[in-house]
Amino acid sequence: MPADTSRWLDLLLQANVLKTTPRTGWHLRWVPDPENVAAHSWGTAMVALVLAEMSDVELDRGRMLTMAMLHDLAETEVSDIPRMAKQFLPEGAKNEAEAQALAAILSGLPMAPDWTELMADYEQERSPEAQLVRDADRLEFLLQAWVYRETHGNARLEEVRWAYIGRQFTTPAAQLLAQAVLERWESSTSQG
Amino acid sequence: MPADTSRWLDLLLQANVLKTTPRTGWHLRWVPDPENVAAHSWGTAMVALVLAEMSDVELDRGRMLTMAMLHDLAETEVSDIPRMAKQFLPEGAKNEAEAQALAAILSGLPMAPDWTELMADYEQERSPEAQLVRDADRLEFLLQAWVYRETHGNARLEEVRWAYIGRQFTTPAAQLLAQAVLERWESSTSQG
Amino acid sequence: MPADTSRWLDLLLQANVLKTTPRTGWHLRWVPDPENVAAHSWGTAMVALVLAEMSDVELDRGRMLTMAMLHDLAETEVSDIPRMAKQFLPEGAKNEAEAQALAAILSGLPMAPDWTELMADYEQERSPEAQLVRDADRLEFLLQAWVYRETHGNARLEEVRWAYIGRQFTTPAAQLLAQAVLERWESSTSQG
Amino acid sequence: MPADTSRWLDLLLQANVLKTTPRTGWHLRWVPDPENVAAHSWGTAMVALVLAEMSDVELDRGRMLTMAMLHDLAETEVSDIPRMAKQFLPEGAKNEAEAQALAAILSGLPMAPDWTELMADYEQERSPEAQLVRDADRLEFLLQAWVYRETHGNARLEEVRWAYIGRQFTTPAAQLLAQAVLERWESSTSQG
Amino acid sequence: MPADTSRWLDLLLQANVLKTTPRTGWHLRWVPDPENVAAHSWGTAMVALVLAEMSDVELDRGRMLTMAMLHDLAETEVSDIPRMAKQFLPEGAKNEAEAQALAAILSGLPMAPDWTELMADYEQERSPEAQLVRDADRLEFLLQAWVYRETHGNARLEEVRWAYIGRQFTTPAAQLLAQAVLERWESSTSQG
Amino acid sequence: MPADTSRWLDLLLQANVLKTTPRTGWHLRWVPDPENVAAHSWGTAMVALVLAEMSDVELDRGRMLTMAMLHDLAETEVSDIPRMAKQFLPEGAKNEAEAQALAAILSGLPMAPDWTELMADYEQERSPEAQLVRDADRLEFLLQAWVYRETHGNARLEEVRWAYIGRQFTTPAAQLLAQAVLERWESSTSQG
Repeated sequence: MPADTSRWLDLLLQANVLKTTPRTGWHLRWVPDPENVAAHSWGTAMVALVLAEMSDVELDRGRMLTMAMLHDLAETEVSDIPRMAKQFLPEGAKNEAEAQALAAILSGLPMAPDWTELMADYEQERSPEAQLVRDADRLEFLLQAWVYRETHGNARLEEVRWAYIGRQFTTPAAQLLAQAVLERWESSTSQG
Repeated sequence: MPADTSRWLDLLLQANVLKTTPRTGWHLRWVPDPENVAAHSWGTAMVALVLAEMSDVELDRGRMLTMAMLHDLAETEVSDIPRMAKQFLPEGAKNEAEAQALAAILSGLPMAPDWTELMADYEQERSPEAQLVRDADRLEFLLQAWVYRETHGNARLEEVRWAYIGRQFTTPAAQLLAQAVLERWESSTSQG
Repeated sequence: MPADTSRWLDLLLQANVLKTTPRTGWHLRWVPDPENVAAHSWGTAMVALVLAEMSDVELDRGRMLTMAMLHDLAETEVSDIPRMAKQFLPEGAKNEAEAQALAAILSGLPMAPDWTELMADYEQERSPEAQLVRDADRLEFLLQAWVYRETHGNARLEEVRWAYIGRQFTTPAAQLLAQAVLERWESSTSQG
Repeated sequence: MPADTSRWLDLLLQANVLKTTPRTGWHLRWVPDPENVAAHSWGTAMVALVLAEMSDVELDRGRMLTMAMLHDLAETEVSDIPRMAKQFLPEGAKNEAEAQALAAILSGLPMAPDWTELMADYEQERSPEAQLVRDADRLEFLLQAWVYRETHGNARLEEVRWAYIGRQFTTPAAQLLAQAVLERWESSTSQG
Repeated sequence: MPADTSRWLDLLLQANVLKTTPRTGWHLRWVPDPENVAAHSWGTAMVALVLAEMSDVELDRGRMLTMAMLHDLAETEVSDIPRMAKQFLPEGAKNEAEAQALAAILSGLPMAPDWTELMADYEQERSPEAQLVRDADRLEFLLQAWVYRETHGNARLEEVRWAYIGRQFTTPAAQLLAQAVLERWESSTSQG
Repeated sequence: MPADTSRWLDLLLQANVLKTTPRTGWHLRWVPDPENVAAHSWGTAMVALVLAEMSDVELDRGRMLTMAMLHDLAETEVSDIPRMAKQFLPEGAKNEAEAQALAAILSGLPMAPDWTELMADYEQERSPEAQLVRDADRLEFLLQAWVYRETHGNARLEEVRWAYIGRQFTTPAAQLLAQAVLERWESSTSQG
């Protein structure tokens, strides 16, 4: 049964909220007026595209990019709860809340089962596409942290650099790119 | 055992994060560049002061204002999870997370037991001071919503007005002030 | 011949500029602190996804979403020259500049021929994917204009509504969605 | 004679202006989009609370926190005239203007005499509460200057550090905390 | 005796502060992120140019535009004290403070006497150029208030419209332009 | 034939757009929330005034300041196309587009021929006034780059310093001032 046009419009309006939802992680590190979740989602998709080009694994790019676009959609209901808050919530509560919120956001839409399966794959990093997009999400954060470090002079962001040294990525391309970011970061920090 | 100066400074630095933490509820309603949690906490204390002056109940003002100042301090760890997200979290999980975060924020400080008791009172609205500050918190939200409605032309904020019509406050002074805000709001909306 | 990691990182850094490039069209209509091109690109991909779900045409979603992600990448060199400026430039100069800028951005990268072909398809609206993403780009602008109208009270945006009344989209789904936006817009304008 | 509800609401609306009044001192030092007076007032109250906890002097906390909340209320009429402007105004003119503005803001309200007395005490630093809140106001400025230095990379803020070296505070706790801020500041400046 | 280059550079750096000094009058009316004094000074010069073109009086345009550029330079020392604060300051204290601040800003520069005479003329509205720039300053405020009213939906700005109805300008061209702004404002308010 | 008042008002409204048009060059260098074109135009006029005071050449200051005020007016139609985009446009296309846009902006206004001649002089740097204002425009950019470097900690702005080392200005006063900026910049960078 197809949804009526008004239902599709409601979905787009809800998604639009991500354009004005700032990423909580940057506020907690005193980054003024930081990027919003929509821009980060675009950035994640860009990194995913580059990782796909760098590797020779066969990937379903429609699936991969849809994942990147949608991976924070539940935040329009649940907000961007930062990673460090998870220690204070019951085990799995954040993921469960996001899954339920996604169900509410998609209710009555024909592709709800498909997108739900897609997001479950992403959370559990099952498929090669999911593993690559998860890597892209983390790499995008590292990259943005360095850009803010370079262009805002925010010394608190050095803790992001330290947190990523020695960190393991699933895909070799992500490992290479993360290494390249860390090298440039170290080089500019020691000079400036 | 007194804490050393460095521990007190760490507390102030963590609290300082509230100055750059925007209130999530406004982003979800498309208010651009909204107030931060520090300014809201100050506003809550101002409303509490006015409610105290309007009523003839005897109140411990030190206790009342400390509550207003601190009531969102846990958000420096947990972020400002919006009210509507609670439906997706286990019963009581948000309050429990905030209580645990507060314990972490205050650990090692001599007044930790006092502030913990104070915040528990606030959450459970036991004392007259707690009831008044809870009313102040809600009233401050209504007042700010109207100010944004008047000065940003944001039609989505009308839903806040509708949500507050008929709402019950605990203290008579808050009931009177809420009624006054709603009357001015209605009057300016019907004119403009 | 594969590019080295540093070259891929340079591409990502250049793309990152779109996160801080505001859309010129909003400034010219006095929208303060408007969305940036990265958020718009994400929005375009979201609309494209919805249009694809609404229609029963078979589409290459990897191609479609890549187009949406990349369609403004040349603006990192050329800036976001507004539509109305085209009347003052030689016929085709803006498109030609963007094509040359894209060539410079992709030079030395193995997928340069593929992405170049993709963007040429987009500009000329040849494939069904290109037609749908072009519709998505226009629809995203209409949708955002309405959101700003509703939430910023900017009367100048009514000219966007007038410009879209009677406008033809290529895909039936876009036609339906545009109609739905215009109806809600008219309804809220006549009330408020 | 009690004031009517509408008069109380007017007071809250006037106070609300402090949420959008940026602190002039930061603009003069090129801090972009700095904190507003409401957030600073909250910060002053937080510092005052910590100073009270650090010391063993008996204090009226209601009086102390009310002072911190209200100490810049006159700026809703007079604006935040910076300290350095005082050399160009007649002796005492700024304080006198603020006292008169406060009288206008509170006119017709039953607690006007109490709040007037409170603010006079604050200006003249008579009571232990006033001395502590004055120290808190100055310490909050130093703390915020360091946070901006660390997170905005603003070299002009070093002049604040220099101005505070050797400065005397009235309360021993403030002296200790200021010393701790200066030590961390110096340590991070010499490293970065 | 010519000043050395370093002294001229100091003057330009001090003037540069006006680029980040927001106009206080807008904050007091809840305009978020309002224009700064530099942009207003440019706007005043633009209005002055138009008034000069509309009239057939012979004017020294170098003198006129220099006045418009410099008329708020003292605010880099004194800040933008709003008009309504004057009632709380001694008679003439604001003007006197600005004159002294200007003297400090220009001390040691060869054109100090010329610029001082120019600003005294402006304050006292003696010359035709001074009268026209004063009109331009007021008209620029009215124009900007209407632009904010149209594009921010700020109902509080209607009070500016009411304040300008019936207001007398010195130059006939300013009178005509103010009337034209008020007519458009009334027309758009009654429609929207 | 005089224009009617409404036509003059339209000109002022169009010019007003420069107050909300950010300078593209800063966005491309990751400067967040940079200055707008109106503030830059005011800054250019200030630098021009200082250059005129530093030199002993006889200048028509009305002509000089009008040039500085108007030199980016065409950007209200064409947008602020960055210098580096010129390599992708046909030879002279950007200047030609700005000339045509200016003609459209001034059409029907009595001073159109005068202002057109003025801007052509500026573009071609014929008169001493034009040469000085061109120098002022470049110097203002250098000065602002250094201010952002000092106060935002943006390491990417070092490339502006490098680009100006050894650069030739037309007027000796500009050469001296540029040298003074570069010396201070180098001195503060080497200190850290």
